[in-house]
Amino acid sequence: MIDVYTAPTPNGYKVTVLLEEMGVEYNLIPIDFSKNDQKTPEFLALNPNGRIPVIVDRGNDDFVVFESGAIMVYLAEKYGQFYPQDPKVRSRALQWLMFQMGGVGPMMGQANVFYRYFPEKIQPAIDRYQKECRRLFEVLDSRLAKARYLAGDELTIADFANWCWVRTHKWSGASVEGLEHLNRWIDELYARPGCQAGVNKPERLKSSDELIKHAQNMVTR
Amino acid sequence: MIDVYTAPTPNGYKVTVLLEEMGVEYNLIPIDFSKNDQKTPEFLALNPNGRIPVIVDRGNDDFVVFESGAIMVYLAEKYGQFYPQDPKVRSRALQWLMFQMGGVGPMMGQANVFYRYFPEKIQPAIDRYQKECRRLFEVLDSRLAKARYLAGDELTIADFANWCWVRTHKWSGASVEGLEHLNRWIDELYARPGCQAGVNKPERLKSSDELIKHAQNMVTR
Repeated sequence: MIDVYTAPTPNGYKVTVLLEEMGVEYNLIPIDFSKNDQKTPEFLALNPNGRIPVIVDRGNDDFVVFESGAIMVYLAEKYGQFYPQDPKVRSRALQWLMFQMGGVGPMMGQANVFYRYFPEKIQPAIDRYQKECRRLFEVLDSRLAKARYLAGDELTIADFANWCWVRTHKWSGASVEGLEHLNRWIDELYARPGCQAGVNKPERLKSSDELIKHAQNMVTR
Repeated sequence: MIDVYTAPTPNGYKVTVLLEEMGVEYNLIPIDFSKNDQKTPEFLALNPNGRIPVIVDRGNDDFVVFESGAIMVYLAEKYGQFYPQDPKVRSRALQWLMFQMGGVGPMMGQANVFYRYFPEKIQPAIDRYQKECRRLFEVLDSRLAKARYLAGDELTIADFANWCWVRTHKWSGASVEGLEHLNRWIDELYARPGCQAGVNKPERLKSSDELIKHAQNMVTR
């Protein structure tokens, strides 16, 4: 059994979407940021970075994996799904996963911080990150103009990783308007039962006020 | 032969350090940001994100790999070095590589933007990113208190990736003072001829004024 320490955020959903898509049973352990669950000694022993998601593989000597991108690779390799064996396709999947890890995730994250959570309204910082998000969305669109999925013909962990972030573009104040290939792909993933199930585990917070309050606890000022 | 499109930046050095450490011959193709080399149609055909580094493996049907983290995995797998076969050690190396890709790199990058390149001085943004860098350095230090290298007893791509960024902490205005395990590891990697050679390819810019001017061309405002 896989224990999944997670919370209702894009990085958390990357893991629950993948597990739901693979049809693998898992044990969901919600982490409550408002209680600082992610900073307890027990949690820091699993991930010294104090961030979700983290998994513990009870079927593999309680092996711990943190960093959402590394968890996706671990699970996809373990269950042999969504990370094709062909070395070139596999590398392309990893390239677009890294694009999400180093680009889409951090830049949408910074847009959220300055647009939603920061105690001061700093317009040049908001503009910077919203523009960078749009630029990254255009890069994804140009790739999806040439291929059905990010790694090519096959759906991979790279699609789930990017989709979990890009679908929340409104929250970051960044637009996907006019990006027809990106929108086609967003809609295709939304239609998948596994994706739908994954982005509802754990249960979402009740209101955006509550979400903002929780997120404010996390922001380094 | 491996063609390496790169520039004197931490992400570029990740690839040249690894190649030098592996003793693999490569063809260095410097990309000049001041001439916008990274936005030419030829370069965008290799990487639609318009960022260095990119490699083209002439010995593998001209296969193109972008995103520094994915390039490191590709090269380490191809040459069988610095990415151990043991699945747990390999996963730990990937976890700490992802930590650099999603944490250390983007946060030091944002600190550099607001501390060095942004047209306005926005102190709360400078503070935010410098504090986050320090927090991430402390996470690395806590890991290196328990293990010689990030993945355990063996030096891996995760060490090179993080080191290429952390060594530039002064440029980001973030301190490593008092972090004895991190400093021990920084010094150990500095003493390696491959690391030394890698962070001098391509040749560095002559002055920090020149560096700032080039970087300003890259910043999304």
